[in-house]
Amino acid sequence: MNAKDILIKAVQCDKEGRILEAQSLYQDGIQILMDVVADETDAAKKKVYYERIKEYIDRAEQIKIRVQKHAETGEIVANIPIDENSCGHSYRSLFGKYLNTDVKEILLDEPYLTERYQFQNLLAFAELAVKQSKNLKYIRLITKPDSKNPDGQAAILKQIKDDLAKREITLTIKYEPSLHDRKIVLSNGYIIKIGRGLHFFKAISPLYSLGLCDYDFRKCLQTDVDIWRTKNFS
Amino acid sequence: MNAKDILIKAVQCDKEGRILEAQSLYQDGIQILMDVVADETDAAKKKVYYERIKEYIDRAEQIKIRVQKHAETGEIVANIPIDENSCGHSYRSLFGKYLNTDVKEILLDEPYLTERYQFQNLLAFAELAVKQSKNLKYIRLITKPDSKNPDGQAAILKQIKDDLAKREITLTIKYEPSLHDRKIVLSNGYIIKIGRGLHFFKAISPLYSLGLCDYDFRKCLQTDVDIWRTKNFS
Repeated sequence: MNAKDILIKAVQCDKEGRILEAQSLYQDGIQILMDVVADETDAAKKKVYYERIKEYIDRAEQIKIRVQKHAETGEIVANIPIDENSCGHSYRSLFGKYLNTDVKEILLDEPYLTERYQFQNLLAFAELAVKQSKNLKYIRLITKPDSKNPDGQAAILKQIKDDLAKREITLTIKYEPSLHDRKIVLSNGYIIKIGRGLHFFKAISPLYSLGLCDYDFRKCLQTDVDIWRTKNFS
Repeated sequence: MNAKDILIKAVQCDKEGRILEAQSLYQDGIQILMDVVADETDAAKKKVYYERIKEYIDRAEQIKIRVQKHAETGEIVANIPIDENSCGHSYRSLFGKYLNTDVKEILLDEPYLTERYQFQNLLAFAELAVKQSKNLKYIRLITKPDSKNPDGQAAILKQIKDDLAKREITLTIKYEPSLHDRKIVLSNGYIIKIGRGLHFFKAISPLYSLGLCDYDFRKCLQTDVDIWRTKNFS
Protein backbone atom coordinates (compact mmCIF):
# COMPACT_ATOMS: atom_id res chain seq x y z
CA MET A 1 0.00 0.00 0.00
CA ASN A 2 1.16 3.57 -0.63
CA ALA A 3 1.10 6.29 2.05
CA LYS A 4 -2.27 7.62 0.92
CA ASP A 5 -4.03 4.23 1.13
CA ILE A 6 -2.41 3.46 4.46
CA LEU A 7 -3.50 6.76 5.94
CA ILE A 8 -7.04 6.46 4.56
CA LYS A 9 -7.23 3.07 6.25
CA ALA A 10 -5.76 4.55 9.44
CA VAL A 11 -8.44 7.26 9.62
CA GLN A 12 -11.13 4.67 8.88
CA CYS A 13 -9.89 2.34 11.66
CA ASP A 14 -9.68 5.33 14.01
CA LYS A 15 -13.33 6.18 13.31
CA GLU A 16 -14.41 2.58 13.87
CA GLY A 17 -12.72 2.46 17.25
CA ARG A 18 -9.94 0.16 16.06
CA ILE A 19 -7.40 2.52 17.51
CA LEU A 20 -4.48 0.13 17.96
CA GLU A 21 -4.57 -0.71 14.29
CA ALA A 22 -5.02 2.98 13.45
CA GLN A 23 -1.95 3.86 15.53
CA SER A 24 0.11 1.24 13.75
CA LEU A 25 -1.08 2.45 10.32
CA TYR A 26 -0.38 6.09 11.21
CA GLN A 27 3.17 5.10 12.10
CA ASP A 28 3.63 3.17 8.84
CA GLY A 29 2.13 6.07 6.84
CA ILE A 30 4.32 8.63 8.59
CA GLN A 31 7.42 6.60 7.75
CA ILE A 32 6.55 6.53 4.05
CA LEU A 33 5.68 10.26 4.00
CA MET A 34 9.05 11.04 5.61
CA ASP A 35 10.79 9.25 2.74
CA VAL A 36 8.63 11.09 0.19
CA VAL A 37 9.31 14.50 1.73
CA ALA A 38 13.05 13.86 1.66
CA ASP A 39 12.90 13.48 -2.13
CA GLU A 40 10.57 16.45 -2.64
CA THR A 41 12.21 19.66 -3.91
CA ASP A 42 9.15 21.94 -4.15
CA ALA A 43 9.07 23.95 -0.90
CA ALA A 44 5.28 24.47 -0.92
CA LYS A 45 4.65 20.75 -1.36
CA LYS A 46 7.20 19.97 1.35
CA LYS A 47 5.25 22.21 3.74
CA VAL A 48 1.97 20.42 3.04
CA TYR A 49 3.64 17.07 3.65
CA TYR A 50 5.14 18.28 6.92
CA GLU A 51 1.73 19.47 8.12
CA ARG A 52 0.23 16.11 7.32
CA ILE A 53 3.05 14.29 9.06
CA LYS A 54 2.64 16.48 12.16
CA GLU A 55 -1.10 15.80 12.19
CA TYR A 56 -0.62 12.02 12.03
CA ILE A 57 2.15 12.04 14.62
CA ASP A 58 -0.15 13.92 17.00
CA ARG A 59 -2.97 11.49 16.41
CA ALA A 60 -0.75 8.43 16.94
CA GLU A 61 0.61 10.03 20.11
CA GLN A 62 -2.91 10.70 21.42
CA ILE A 63 -3.83 7.06 20.90
CA LYS A 64 -0.66 5.92 22.65
CA ILE A 65 -1.47 8.08 25.70
CA ARG A 66 -5.08 6.90 25.71
CA VAL A 67 -4.10 3.22 25.70
CA GLN A 68 -1.40 3.84 28.30
CA LYS A 69 -3.81 5.62 30.66
CA HIS A 70 -6.33 2.86 30.07
CA ALA A 71 -3.81 0.26 31.22
CA GLU A 72 -2.86 2.26 34.30
CA THR A 73 -6.32 2.91 35.70
CA GLY A 74 -9.25 0.65 36.38
CA GLU A 75 -10.42 -1.60 39.14
CA ILE A 76 -9.46 -5.16 39.79
CA VAL A 77 -12.28 -7.62 39.14
CA ALA A 78 -10.52 -10.91 39.81
CA ASN A 79 -7.35 -12.18 41.37
CA ILE A 80 -6.61 -15.81 40.65
CA PRO A 81 -3.62 -17.32 42.42
CA ILE A 82 -2.25 -20.35 40.58
CA ASP A 83 -0.56 -22.85 42.87
CA GLU A 84 2.54 -24.78 41.88
CA ASN A 85 1.54 -28.07 40.19
CA SER A 86 -2.17 -27.24 40.14
CA CYS A 87 -4.27 -27.95 37.04
CA GLY A 88 -7.40 -26.50 35.44
CA HIS A 89 -5.84 -23.21 34.35
CA SER A 90 -6.12 -23.16 30.58
CA TYR A 91 -6.43 -19.67 29.08
CA ARG A 92 -10.10 -20.47 28.49
CA SER A 93 -10.69 -21.40 32.13
CA LEU A 94 -8.77 -18.38 33.41
CA PHE A 95 -10.01 -15.55 31.23
CA GLY A 96 -12.04 -16.98 28.34
CA LYS A 97 -15.17 -15.13 29.40
CA TYR A 98 -13.53 -11.73 28.89
CA LEU A 99 -12.68 -12.56 25.30
CA ASN A 100 -16.19 -11.76 24.09
CA THR A 101 -17.65 -10.30 20.90
CA ASP A 102 -16.97 -6.73 22.10
CA VAL A 103 -13.24 -7.26 21.64
CA LYS A 104 -12.07 -5.71 18.39
CA GLU A 105 -8.40 -5.28 19.26
CA ILE A 106 -5.87 -6.90 21.54
CA LEU A 107 -2.55 -5.57 22.76
CA LEU A 108 -0.30 -8.40 23.90
CA ASP A 109 2.92 -7.65 25.77
CA GLU A 110 4.76 -10.97 26.00
CA PRO A 111 8.53 -10.63 26.35
CA TYR A 112 9.47 -14.25 25.72
CA LEU A 113 8.73 -15.80 22.35
CA THR A 114 11.74 -17.82 21.32
CA GLU A 115 11.11 -21.46 22.31
CA ARG A 116 8.82 -23.93 20.63
CA TYR A 117 6.50 -24.19 23.63
CA GLN A 118 6.28 -20.41 23.82
CA PHE A 119 5.06 -20.13 20.23
CA GLN A 120 2.66 -22.95 21.02
CA ASN A 121 1.29 -20.93 23.95
CA LEU A 122 0.88 -17.92 21.66
CA LEU A 123 -1.09 -20.08 19.25
CA ALA A 124 -3.27 -21.47 22.04
CA PHE A 125 -4.02 -17.88 23.05
CA ALA A 126 -4.75 -16.91 19.43
CA GLU A 127 -7.07 -19.90 19.00
CA LEU A 128 -9.09 -18.85 22.02
CA ALA A 129 -9.23 -15.20 20.93
CA VAL A 130 -10.27 -16.05 17.36
CA LYS A 131 -12.90 -18.53 18.54
CA GLN A 132 -14.52 -16.32 21.13
CA SER A 133 -13.99 -12.76 19.91
CA LYS A 134 -15.82 -12.97 16.61
CA ASN A 135 -15.26 -9.26 15.92
CA LEU A 136 -11.52 -9.32 16.51
CA LYS A 137 -9.69 -7.40 13.77
CA TYR A 138 -6.30 -6.57 15.15
CA ILE A 139 -3.64 -7.89 17.49
CA ARG A 140 -0.52 -5.97 18.37
CA LEU A 141 2.18 -8.17 19.78
CA ILE A 142 5.17 -6.67 21.55
CA THR A 143 8.01 -9.03 22.37
CA LYS A 144 11.77 -9.13 22.91
CA PRO A 145 13.84 -9.99 19.86
CA ASP A 146 15.52 -13.39 19.96
CA SER A 147 19.18 -12.42 20.18
CA LYS A 148 20.36 -15.90 19.16
CA ASN A 149 18.01 -16.56 16.27
CA PRO A 150 16.12 -13.43 15.21
CA ASP A 151 15.37 -14.81 11.73
CA GLY A 152 13.87 -18.02 13.13
CA GLN A 153 11.68 -16.02 15.49
CA ALA A 154 10.57 -13.67 12.72
CA ALA A 155 9.80 -16.61 10.40
CA ILE A 156 7.55 -18.33 12.94
CA LEU A 157 5.74 -15.11 13.86
CA LYS A 158 5.26 -14.50 10.13
CA GLN A 159 3.57 -17.93 9.85
CA ILE A 160 1.17 -16.97 12.62
CA LYS A 161 0.61 -13.52 11.10
CA ASP A 162 -0.23 -15.06 7.72
CA ASP A 163 -2.57 -17.56 9.32
CA LEU A 164 -4.45 -14.80 11.15
CA ALA A 165 -4.57 -12.71 7.98
CA LYS A 166 -6.59 -15.52 6.34
CA ARG A 167 -9.17 -14.90 9.05
CA GLU A 168 -9.06 -11.13 8.38
CA ILE A 169 -7.18 -10.37 11.55
CA THR A 170 -4.10 -8.18 11.30
CA LEU A 171 -1.18 -9.08 13.53
CA THR A 172 1.61 -6.56 13.88
CA ILE A 173 4.78 -7.45 15.73
CA LYS A 174 7.00 -4.95 17.50
CA TYR A 175 10.35 -5.94 18.98
CA GLU A 176 11.35 -4.21 22.20
CA PRO A 177 14.64 -5.43 23.68
CA SER A 178 13.88 -3.93 27.10
CA LEU A 179 10.31 -5.25 27.48
CA HIS A 180 9.71 -6.84 30.85
CA ASP A 181 6.08 -6.58 31.94
CA ARG A 182 3.46 -8.95 30.64
CA LYS A 183 -0.07 -7.92 29.95
CA ILE A 184 -3.01 -8.56 27.66
CA VAL A 185 -5.15 -5.49 26.99
CA LEU A 186 -8.55 -6.12 25.42
CA SER A 187 -10.38 -3.29 23.67
CA ASN A 188 -13.55 -4.11 25.62
CA GLY A 189 -11.90 -2.72 28.74
CA TYR A 190 -10.43 -5.80 30.38
CA ILE A 191 -6.75 -6.16 31.13
CA ILE A 192 -5.23 -9.50 32.06
CA LYS A 193 -1.96 -9.42 33.95
CA ILE A 194 -0.21 -12.72 34.59
CA GLY A 195 3.05 -12.72 36.54
CA ARG A 196 4.61 -15.20 34.12
CA GLY A 197 2.80 -13.97 31.01
CA LEU A 198 1.55 -16.76 28.76
CA HIS A 199 4.16 -19.23 29.99
CA PHE A 200 3.06 -20.85 33.23
CA PHE A 201 2.38 -24.41 32.04
CA LYS A 202 4.75 -27.25 32.81
CA ALA A 203 5.68 -29.63 30.01
CA ILE A 204 3.73 -32.88 29.99
CA SER A 205 5.70 -35.98 30.82
CA PRO A 206 5.73 -38.55 29.40
CA LEU A 207 5.02 -37.21 25.93
CA TYR A 208 1.72 -39.04 25.50
CA SER A 209 -0.26 -37.74 28.46
CA LEU A 210 -3.48 -35.84 28.90
CA GLY A 211 -2.64 -32.18 28.48
CA LEU A 212 -1.19 -32.61 25.01
CA CYS A 213 -4.05 -30.57 23.52
CA ASP A 214 -6.16 -29.42 26.46
CA TYR A 215 -4.10 -27.19 28.75
CA ASP A 216 -6.57 -27.67 31.61
CA PHE A 217 -4.75 -30.99 32.17
CA ARG A 218 -1.32 -29.39 32.42
CA LYS A 219 0.38 -28.77 35.72
CA CYS A 220 1.23 -25.12 36.30
CA LEU A 221 4.04 -23.07 37.74
CA GLN A 222 3.11 -20.78 40.62
CA THR A 223 1.90 -17.40 39.38
CA ASP A 224 -0.82 -14.81 39.91
CA VAL A 225 -3.47 -13.66 37.50
CA ASP A 226 -5.06 -10.25 37.97
CA ILE A 227 -7.97 -9.16 35.84
CA TRP A 228 -8.64 -5.43 35.64
CA ARG A 229 -11.67 -3.64 34.31
CA THR A 230 -11.35 -0.18 32.77
CA LYS A 231 -13.47 1.71 30.32
CA ASN A 232 -13.07 0.33 26.84
CA PHE A 233 -10.43 2.33 25.02
CA SER A 234 -12.00 2.52 21.58
CA MET B 1 -4.28 -59.30 42.16
CA ASN B 2 -5.08 -62.99 42.63
CA ALA B 3 -8.07 -64.72 41.02
CA LYS B 4 -10.26 -64.26 44.08
CA ASP B 5 -9.72 -60.50 44.31
CA ILE B 6 -10.17 -60.08 40.58
CA LEU B 7 -13.45 -61.99 40.62
CA ILE B 8 -14.73 -60.13 43.69
CA LYS B 9 -14.02 -56.89 41.84
CA ALA B 10 -15.69 -58.31 38.71
CA VAL B 11 -18.91 -59.10 40.59
CA GLN B 12 -18.81 -55.68 42.24
CA CYS B 13 -18.39 -53.87 38.88
CA ASP B 14 -21.17 -56.02 37.43
CA LYS B 15 -23.54 -54.94 40.23
CA GLU B 16 -22.63 -51.28 39.75
CA GLY B 17 -23.42 -51.45 36.06
CA ARG B 18 -19.77 -51.20 35.01
CA ILE B 19 -20.24 -54.21 32.82
CA LEU B 20 -17.40 -53.67 30.36
CA GLU B 21 -14.91 -53.61 33.19
CA ALA B 22 -16.67 -56.61 34.79
CA GLN B 23 -16.38 -58.55 31.53
CA SER B 24 -12.69 -57.79 31.31
CA LEU B 25 -12.14 -58.82 34.94
CA TYR B 26 -14.13 -62.07 34.50
CA GLN B 27 -11.86 -62.92 31.58
CA ASP B 28 -8.70 -62.19 33.57
CA GLY B 29 -10.03 -64.19 36.54
CA ILE B 30 -11.00 -67.13 34.35
CA GLN B 31 -7.50 -67.21 32.89
CA ILE B 32 -5.90 -67.42 36.34
CA LEU B 33 -8.40 -70.07 37.54
CA MET B 34 -7.59 -72.17 34.46
CA ASP B 35 -3.92 -72.14 35.43
CA VAL B 36 -4.77 -73.02 39.03
CA VAL B 37 -7.04 -75.90 38.02
CA ALA B 38 -4.31 -77.35 35.80
CA ASP B 39 -2.03 -77.66 38.86
CA GLU B 40 -4.76 -79.01 41.13
CA THR B 41 -4.68 -82.77 41.78
CA ASP B 42 -7.67 -83.12 44.13
CA ALA B 43 -10.65 -84.14 41.94
CA ALA B 44 -13.27 -82.60 44.25
CA LYS B 45 -11.49 -79.25 44.30
CA LYS B 46 -11.02 -79.44 40.54
CA LYS B 47 -14.77 -79.85 40.15
CA VAL B 48 -15.50 -76.77 42.27
CA TYR B 49 -13.04 -74.74 40.21
CA TYR B 50 -14.60 -75.88 36.95
CA GLU B 51 -18.06 -74.90 38.17
CA ARG B 52 -16.78 -71.46 39.06
CA ILE B 53 -15.04 -71.09 35.74
CA LYS B 54 -18.20 -72.11 33.89
CA GLU B 55 -20.23 -69.58 35.88
CA TYR B 56 -17.85 -66.71 35.06
CA ILE B 57 -17.59 -67.71 31.41
CA ASP B 58 -21.38 -67.62 31.15
CA ARG B 59 -21.52 -64.22 32.81
CA ALA B 60 -18.83 -62.75 30.56
CA GLU B 61 -20.62 -64.19 27.55
CA GLN B 62 -23.94 -62.68 28.63
CA ILE B 63 -22.31 -59.26 28.89
CA LYS B 64 -20.70 -59.67 25.47
CA ILE B 65 -24.07 -60.46 23.90
CA ARG B 66 -25.75 -57.59 25.73
CA VAL B 67 -23.19 -55.05 24.50
CA GLN B 68 -23.28 -56.50 20.99
CA LYS B 69 -27.07 -56.28 20.81
CA HIS B 70 -26.88 -52.80 22.22
CA ALA B 71 -24.59 -51.73 19.39
CA GLU B 72 -26.79 -53.32 16.74
CA THR B 73 -30.11 -51.76 17.71
CA GLY B 74 -31.15 -48.23 18.43
CA GLU B 75 -32.30 -45.24 16.49
CA ILE B 76 -30.22 -42.64 14.77
CA VAL B 77 -30.36 -39.23 16.46
CA ALA B 78 -27.89 -37.30 14.32
CA ASN B 79 -26.12 -37.62 11.02
CA ILE B 80 -23.34 -35.11 10.52
CA PRO B 81 -21.67 -35.11 7.13
CA ILE B 82 -18.16 -33.62 7.26
CA ASP B 83 -17.09 -32.02 4.01
CA GLU B 84 -13.55 -32.21 2.68
CA ASN B 85 -11.52 -29.26 4.00
CA SER B 86 -14.26 -28.02 6.31
CA CYS B 87 -13.45 -26.89 9.87
CA GLY B 88 -15.26 -26.75 13.19
CA HIS B 89 -15.38 -30.51 13.77
CA SER B 90 -13.43 -31.09 16.97
CA TYR B 91 -14.60 -34.09 18.98
CA ARG B 92 -16.17 -31.63 21.40
CA SER B 93 -18.13 -29.88 18.65
CA LEU B 94 -19.23 -33.16 17.08
CA PHE B 95 -20.24 -35.28 20.05
CA GLY B 96 -19.13 -33.56 23.26
CA LYS B 97 -22.69 -33.25 24.53
CA TYR B 98 -23.15 -37.04 24.62
CA LEU B 99 -20.12 -37.46 26.87
CA ASN B 100 -22.06 -36.50 29.99
CA THR B 101 -21.94 -37.54 33.64
CA ASP B 102 -24.06 -40.64 32.94
CA VAL B 103 -21.16 -42.23 31.08
CA LYS B 104 -19.37 -44.74 33.30
CA GLU B 105 -17.77 -46.84 30.60
CA ILE B 106 -16.63 -46.42 27.02
CA LEU B 107 -15.92 -49.03 24.40
CA LEU B 108 -13.66 -47.64 21.70
CA ASP B 109 -13.06 -49.60 18.50
CA GLU B 110 -10.31 -47.75 16.65
CA PRO B 111 -8.30 -49.95 14.29
CA TYR B 112 -5.44 -47.54 13.59
CA LEU B 113 -3.19 -46.48 16.42
CA THR B 114 0.37 -46.57 15.17
CA GLU B 115 1.30 -43.03 14.07
CA ARG B 116 2.11 -40.08 16.29
CA TYR B 117 -0.93 -38.09 15.14
CA GLN B 118 -3.15 -41.10 15.81
CA PHE B 119 -2.03 -41.34 19.44
CA GLN B 120 -2.53 -37.60 19.64
CA ASN B 121 -6.12 -38.03 18.46
CA LEU B 122 -6.65 -40.74 21.06
CA LEU B 123 -5.40 -38.33 23.74
CA ALA B 124 -7.64 -35.55 22.49
CA PHE B 125 -10.58 -37.95 22.75
CA ALA B 126 -9.47 -39.04 26.25
CA GLU B 127 -9.13 -35.41 27.37
CA LEU B 128 -12.69 -34.70 26.30
CA ALA B 129 -14.06 -37.85 27.92
CA VAL B 130 -12.25 -37.25 31.22
CA LYS B 131 -13.27 -33.60 31.32
CA GLN B 132 -16.94 -34.12 30.57
CA SER B 133 -17.77 -37.57 31.90
CA LYS B 134 -16.93 -37.06 35.56
CA ASN B 135 -18.13 -40.57 36.46
CA LEU B 136 -16.08 -42.36 33.84
CA LYS B 137 -14.36 -45.41 35.34
CA TYR B 138 -13.44 -47.63 32.46
CA ILE B 139 -12.40 -47.49 28.82
CA ARG B 140 -11.92 -50.55 26.68
CA LEU B 141 -9.87 -49.88 23.61
CA ILE B 142 -9.76 -52.37 20.77
CA THR B 143 -7.20 -51.75 18.06
CA LYS B 144 -5.07 -53.52 15.47
CA PRO B 145 -1.57 -54.45 16.57
CA ASP B 146 1.21 -52.47 14.91
CA SER B 147 2.88 -55.16 12.82
CA LYS B 148 6.03 -53.08 12.32
CA ASN B 149 6.56 -51.82 15.84
CA PRO B 150 4.33 -53.63 18.35
CA ASP B 151 6.57 -52.72 21.31
CA GLY B 152 6.51 -49.01 20.48
CA GLN B 153 2.73 -49.10 20.19
CA ALA B 154 2.37 -50.98 23.48
CA ALA B 155 4.74 -48.54 25.24
CA ILE B 156 2.76 -45.49 24.16
CA LEU B 157 -0.58 -47.06 25.05
CA LYS B 158 0.91 -47.98 28.42
CA GLN B 159 1.79 -44.30 28.99
CA ILE B 160 -1.81 -43.34 28.31
CA LYS B 161 -3.10 -46.21 30.47
CA ASP B 162 -0.89 -45.09 33.39
CA ASP B 163 -1.99 -41.49 32.99
CA LEU B 164 -5.66 -42.48 33.09
CA ALA B 165 -5.01 -44.74 36.09
CA LYS B 166 -3.89 -41.63 38.04
CA ARG B 167 -7.41 -40.33 37.45
CA GLU B 168 -8.92 -43.64 38.61
CA ILE B 169 -9.94 -44.66 35.14
CA THR B 170 -8.99 -48.13 33.98
CA LEU B 171 -7.96 -48.50 30.35
CA THR B 172 -7.70 -51.99 28.96
CA ILE B 173 -6.29 -52.57 25.52
CA LYS B 174 -7.16 -55.48 23.31
CA TYR B 175 -5.39 -56.14 20.03
CA GLU B 176 -7.49 -57.54 17.19
CA PRO B 177 -5.61 -57.96 13.91
CA SER B 178 -8.82 -58.20 11.87
CA LEU B 179 -10.62 -55.16 13.36
CA HIS B 180 -12.08 -52.90 10.72
CA ASP B 181 -15.14 -51.02 11.96
CA ARG B 182 -14.81 -47.91 14.06
CA LYS B 183 -17.21 -47.05 16.81
CA ILE B 184 -17.44 -45.40 20.19
CA VAL B 185 -20.00 -46.96 22.51
CA LEU B 186 -20.93 -44.94 25.59
CA SER B 187 -22.57 -46.66 28.55
CA ASN B 188 -25.27 -43.97 28.65
CA GLY B 189 -26.72 -45.44 25.47
CA TYR B 190 -25.13 -43.33 22.76
CA ILE B 191 -23.03 -44.81 19.99
CA ILE B 192 -20.85 -42.66 17.76
CA LYS B 193 -19.90 -44.08 14.41
CA ILE B 194 -17.43 -42.14 12.29
CA GLY B 195 -16.49 -43.49 8.88
CA ARG B 196 -12.82 -42.70 9.45
CA GLY B 197 -12.83 -43.33 13.20
CA LEU B 198 -10.88 -40.75 15.20
CA HIS B 199 -8.65 -39.85 12.29
CA PHE B 200 -10.34 -37.32 10.02
CA PHE B 201 -8.22 -34.23 10.71
CA LYS B 202 -5.69 -32.97 8.21
CA ALA B 203 -2.27 -31.98 9.48
CA ILE B 204 -1.77 -28.26 10.02
CA SER B 205 0.63 -26.58 7.67
CA PRO B 206 2.82 -24.69 8.34
CA LEU B 207 3.65 -26.08 11.76
CA TYR B 208 2.76 -22.91 13.64
CA SER B 209 -0.87 -22.44 12.65
CA LEU B 210 -4.16 -22.24 14.47
CA GLY B 211 -5.31 -25.79 15.01
CA LEU B 212 -2.16 -26.83 16.87
CA CYS B 213 -4.21 -27.30 20.06
CA ASP B 214 -7.82 -26.62 19.13
CA TYR B 215 -8.99 -29.13 16.53
CA ASP B 216 -11.93 -26.92 15.56
CA PHE B 217 -9.38 -25.00 13.48
CA ARG B 218 -8.19 -28.09 11.61
CA LYS B 219 -9.32 -28.89 8.10
CA CYS B 220 -11.02 -32.27 7.83
CA LEU B 221 -11.13 -35.17 5.45
CA GLN B 222 -14.55 -36.07 4.09
CA THR B 223 -16.38 -38.47 6.39
CA ASP B 224 -19.76 -39.11 7.99
CA VAL B 225 -20.66 -39.13 11.64
CA ASP B 226 -23.71 -41.05 12.81
CA ILE B 227 -24.93 -40.80 16.37
CA TRP B 228 -27.19 -43.60 17.58
CA ARG B 229 -29.27 -43.75 20.70
CA THR B 230 -30.01 -47.10 22.36
CA LYS B 231 -30.95 -48.04 25.90
CA ASN B 232 -27.98 -47.73 28.20
CA PHE B 233 -26.33 -51.11 28.46
CA SER B 234 -25.46 -51.14 32.15
